[in-house]
Amino acid sequence: MNLRVNWRASVSLVGSVVKWLSVPLLFPLLIAAYYGELEAIRTFVTTIVIALVVGGSLERLEPDPDLGAREGFLMVALTWGAVSIVGGLPYVIAGNQIVLPGQFPFVNIVSGPSTLADPVNALFESMSGFTTTGATVMGDISFETHSRALLMWRQLTQWLGGMGIVVLAVAILPKLSVGGAQLMDAEAPGPGIQKLTPRIAETARALWKAYLGITALEIVLLYGLHLLGPVVGQPLAPNMTLYNAVAHGFTTMATGGFSPEARSIEAFSAVVQWVIIPFMVAAGTNFALFWHVLSGNPRTLIRDAEFRFYIGVMAVLSAILTALLFTHQGLVFIPGGEPVAGNLESSLRHAAFQLVSIVTTTGYASMDFNTWNSSAQYLLLAAMLIGGSAGSTGGAIKIVRWYVILKSLRRELFTTVHPEAVRPLRLGGRAVDEQAVRGIYAFTLLYLVIFLASTLLLFLDAERAGGPNLNTLEALSAVAATLGNVGPGFQLLGPMNSYLPFSDISKLLMVALMWIGRLEILTVLVLLTPAYWRT
Amino acid sequence: MNLRVNWRASVSLVGSVVKWLSVPLLFPLLIAAYYGELEAIRTFVTTIVIALVVGGSLERLEPDPDLGAREGFLMVALTWGAVSIVGGLPYVIAGNQIVLPGQFPFVNIVSGPSTLADPVNALFESMSGFTTTGATVMGDISFETHSRALLMWRQLTQWLGGMGIVVLAVAILPKLSVGGAQLMDAEAPGPGIQKLTPRIAETARALWKAYLGITALEIVLLYGLHLLGPVVGQPLAPNMTLYNAVAHGFTTMATGGFSPEARSIEAFSAVVQWVIIPFMVAAGTNFALFWHVLSGNPRTLIRDAEFRFYIGVMAVLSAILTALLFTHQGLVFIPGGEPVAGNLESSLRHAAFQLVSIVTTTGYASMDFNTWNSSAQYLLLAAMLIGGSAGSTGGAIKIVRWYVILKSLRRELFTTVHPEAVRPLRLGGRAVDEQAVRGIYAFTLLYLVIFLASTLLLFLDAERAGGPNLNTLEALSAVAATLGNVGPGFQLLGPMNSYLPFSDISKLLMVALMWIGRLEILTVLVLLTPAYWRT
Ligand SMILES: [K+]
Ligand SMILES: [K+]
Repeated sequence: MNLRVNWRASVSLVGSVVKWLSVPLLFPLLIAAYYGELEAIRTFVTTIVIALVVGGSLERLEPDPDLGAREGFLMVALTWGAVSIVGGLPYVIAGNQIVLPGQFPFVNIVSGPSTLADPVNALFESMSGFTTTGATVMGDISFETHSRALLMWRQLTQWLGGMGIVVLAVAILPKLSVGGAQLMDAEAPGPGIQKLTPRIAETARALWKAYLGITALEIVLLYGLHLLGPVVGQPLAPNMTLYNAVAHGFTTMATGGFSPEARSIEAFSAVVQWVIIPFMVAAGTNFALFWHVLSGNPRTLIRDAEFRFYIGVMAVLSAILTALLFTHQGLVFIPGGEPVAGNLESSLRHAAFQLVSIVTTTGYASMDFNTWNSSAQYLLLAAMLIGGSAGSTGGAIKIVRWYVILKSLRRELFTTVHPEAVRPLRLGGRAVDEQAVRGIYAFTLLYLVIFLASTLLLFLDAERAGGPNLNTLEALSAVAATLGNVGPGFQLLGPMNSYLPFSDISKLLMVALMWIGRLEILTVLVLLTPAYWRT
Repeated sequence: MNLRVNWRASVSLVGSVVKWLSVPLLFPLLIAAYYGELEAIRTFVTTIVIALVVGGSLERLEPDPDLGAREGFLMVALTWGAVSIVGGLPYVIAGNQIVLPGQFPFVNIVSGPSTLADPVNALFESMSGFTTTGATVMGDISFETHSRALLMWRQLTQWLGGMGIVVLAVAILPKLSVGGAQLMDAEAPGPGIQKLTPRIAETARALWKAYLGITALEIVLLYGLHLLGPVVGQPLAPNMTLYNAVAHGFTTMATGGFSPEARSIEAFSAVVQWVIIPFMVAAGTNFALFWHVLSGNPRTLIRDAEFRFYIGVMAVLSAILTALLFTHQGLVFIPGGEPVAGNLESSLRHAAFQLVSIVTTTGYASMDFNTWNSSAQYLLLAAMLIGGSAGSTGGAIKIVRWYVILKSLRRELFTTVHPEAVRPLRLGGRAVDEQAVRGIYAFTLLYLVIFLASTLLLFLDAERAGGPNLNTLEALSAVAATLGNVGPGFQLLGPMNSYLPFSDISKLLMVALMWIGRLEILTVLVLLTPAYWRT
C-alpha cells in the first residue's frame, strides 16, 4: 500500500470499457437504419469510431493492468466519467448536426440545434443516463426534434449504467470495503453474496442473466398487452409499441426513469401503469435474492429482513399517500384523464406508482405530482432519501441502512437504561459487526452533510446567475433527486419539466452529485484526499 | 437496577421544584404591584397559592427521596412538564379573567379573553418559555392586551428554563450518560467539568454566578445606553427602558428569544442590536469555559476546540449571509428604517445578528427575515440544525456534535484508503472514546429521523384540520424551530408572526418536540421503552 497509485493501470482499464462501449452503440445504429434516420446513422458511426480510437489508445497505456484497491477506486470513478463523456457525444453530434462532407453524403433531416448541442447539457443528460438518475435537460422530448435512435440510446445508457452498478455493488465495492457489502453478506441466508460464485466474472454473468431476464419479461408483457388489445376488442395499451416496450424495459430495470414520452408513464393506460409497479419493485430488490429464487429457494426472498422492511415501508407510505390523494378535493388534472380524488382505484394506482417510483429511485411519473398538495409532495421528498436495496440498481441512502439505523437507535434507547447490557445488532438472524454499523452511520451523515451543503451551493449559484429564483422545495428536491439518482424533483424541475433552466455551474454541480451519489460517495471522495495519492 | 422505578421519589422531587417556583413567581407579582396592575396581582397570587399547595402535596409522596438513574430520567422529564403546566396557569387565569368574588374585589381592566385563555395555547407558550424555545402563539403582543407583569413572567420563564438546562447539562445528564458530557470533559483543558466542583450543589452555584453575572452585565449595558443617550445628546437606545433591559437580559442568556416587543429586536436601535450579538454568542458558549476565564485562565477559552469551531462557523456563515443581503436588490422593509441592500453596516449587522441568533438558537429577529430571498432563508433554515455549545443554554444538535462528526467523516475517508490504520479521534488534544463517537452519530440520526417524521405528522394534521395549507419551508422550519428550541420559523410562522393558526393537535405535537428537544431526546424517549419500566 505504500507504492504510488498506478494510474496507468486504471486508465487502461477505463479505456477497455470505452472501447467496448462501441458494442451497445450498435443498437441505436440499427434503430437508425430501421427507421431510415440518416443523420442518426452518421451520429452513431462517428461515435463508434471515436469510442474505438480513444478507448483503444487509452487501453495501450498499460499492456497488463493489475489493480490494487487504490487503482480500483480510480478506475471506478473514471469509468463513469469517461463513459458519460463518450456516451454523451451522440447528443452533441446530433444536436449540432455536424456534417462530415464527402464521407456521409446524407441530407440533414433535423431543423436546428437541440438543447443537447450544448456540451454541458449533453454531459448532464449522459451522466444522468449512466448513473440511472433520469434527470433531464432536454426540454423538448419528441421525435420531431430528436431521432428515434438517439432517444433509444438515451434509454440504453440507463440500462447499461444499471448493469454496471449491480456488478459494482456485488463484485467490486466489497473488495474496496465500500457500500455496506458486509451487510448483504450477513443478511442473505444461505450462501453469502461473495460466496455465490467465486470469481467476479462468474458473479457478473449470473447477475447479467437475472437483469436481462427480468428486462425481457417486462418487454414481453408490455408489448403483449399492446398486441392483446385488438384481440380482446378493447385498447389495453394502444401506444405501447415495441419501441416503447423496449425503451421502458431498459429504464425500469435500471431504476432509471428516462422515457421517450414527454409525459412519462402518464402517456400510457392504467393497465400499463399497474404492470410497471411490480417491475420497479423488483428493480429495487437485492439481485442476489433473485439468484436464490432462481436456484429453487423462493422462501429466501420472503424471509429476507431487508426485503420485508422494503416492502413494508412502501406499503405503509403508499397507504398514507392513497388517503391524501383520495381526499384531495379537485385533483383532476390528467389531460383528458379520470379524476383522482374520490376514485379509489385511481388514487391507489397513482399513490403506489409514485411512491414505489421514488423509493426505488426510478423516477417515472404516472401523473404530474406538481399538482399534488404540499403534504403529498413532502412525503415524496422525504421518500427520496430512502432508496432501494443494497445490491440493486436503486440509489439514495438505501433501505438496508435505514433498517440498521432504526434498529440501532432502538438499541441505543435500551442501553441508555441498561448501560451494562451488551446487545449485538441482528439483521436476519446474524449479528452485524459494530464496524459496519459505524460505517452505516458515517455514510448516512456524510450523505446528509453533502445534501445540506450542496443545497446551499445551488442556492448561491442561482443567486449569482440571476436565473430562476429557487424556492426551498425546488432546491432541496434538486439535490435529493440528483445525489439520490432519483431524477425528477418538484415545481420548476417537476416530472413534466426539466433541469434546463439551471446555470452551467449548477448543472456541473449536479453532474458531480449524480456521479458521487451513484458511486456510494466514498469511492469518489477518497480520490480528493492527500492520503490517497501519497506514496 | 432490577428494582421497580421509584416514581414516588421522582414525583416528590418534581413537587419540590413546583413548590419553589413560587419564589420566582414573586417577581411578576412585584411588577404588577409597581405598575398597579390589579388583575395581574390576583393572577399571580392565585398561581403562587396553587404552586405551594400542589407542589407541597406532591413533595409529601416520599419523605426522603433518593434517586437512581432511572428515577433521574423520570424526574427530569416530569419537571419540565409540571413546571410548564403550573407556570402556564397565569396565562389561562389572566386570559380568562377568572374572578374570585369577595377575595380580590378588584375591577377587571382587560377587555376580553386573550388567545392564551385557551389551555393548549397557554401550555404551548409556557413550554416554549421553560424550554427556552421562544415560539409564540400570542398573536397580539402588546401591553393593551397583556399586563406588564404577565409579559415579564413570560420572559422570566425562559431565564429559569435556561438555568435549569445548564445545571441539567453539567450536573445531571452526565450521571445519566446522556448529552455527550464525556466530550465536554475530554475537551476542556485543565480540570474537567465534572471535576470542577465535586458536588452538584456547588457546581450549580458556580454556574448560577456566571449566568446571573452575565445577565446583570447585559441589563446594565442596555439600560446604560438608554440613560447615556440624553447625556451625549443623541438617542442611543430610546425605548430600552429598564423594563425592556431586564426583559431582554432574561431571554438573551437563556437563548430564549421571547420579547415583549411585537417586532422583537427590530424595535431597538442599531447600537442595541450590536450590543446584543456578543451576549448571544456568550449564551451559546460552554459555561464551564466562563468558570475557567473567571478562575484566571482566559486562554482556555481561545484554545478550546469547540469554541473555535463555533466562532469559525458563525463567522463564515455570517460573511455569506452579509453578501446575500448586501446584493439583494430592493431589500428595504424595516418600517421607517434604513435600506439594507448596498449598506455594508446594515447588511453585516442584520446578517451577523440573525445568524448568531439562529445558530445559538436564541431566535431574536433584528428584522423580518420573511422578506429575505430564498437562499438567505435556506441558510438560516440549515443553521437551525447547528445549535449552541454543549453546556450552554443553546439547543438543536449542538456544535460539538457537528465538530466530532466532521472530524470522524474525514477519518472515515482516510481509513477507506488505509483500512489497516488505527486513528483515534482527537478533540482539543485528547482522544475521544469510540463509544462517545457512536453516541453522537446515533443522537444526530435520531434527531434527523424525528425531524423528518414530525414534519410528515405536521403536514398530515394540517391536512386533517383543513387549516393553513403549509408549504415545505413552513413545515420544515416549524419542526426545526421547535425541536431545536430556536423559536421562529418562516412565512406563516415567521419572526413577526406566530404559531397561533396551527390546530390544537399540531400545537401539542410541537409542545412534545420542544420538550424532547430540550431534554436531549433520549431523556424523554427512554420513558417510552418497556425496558425502562420492567422490574
Ligand atoms: K432514477
Ligand atoms: K430560542
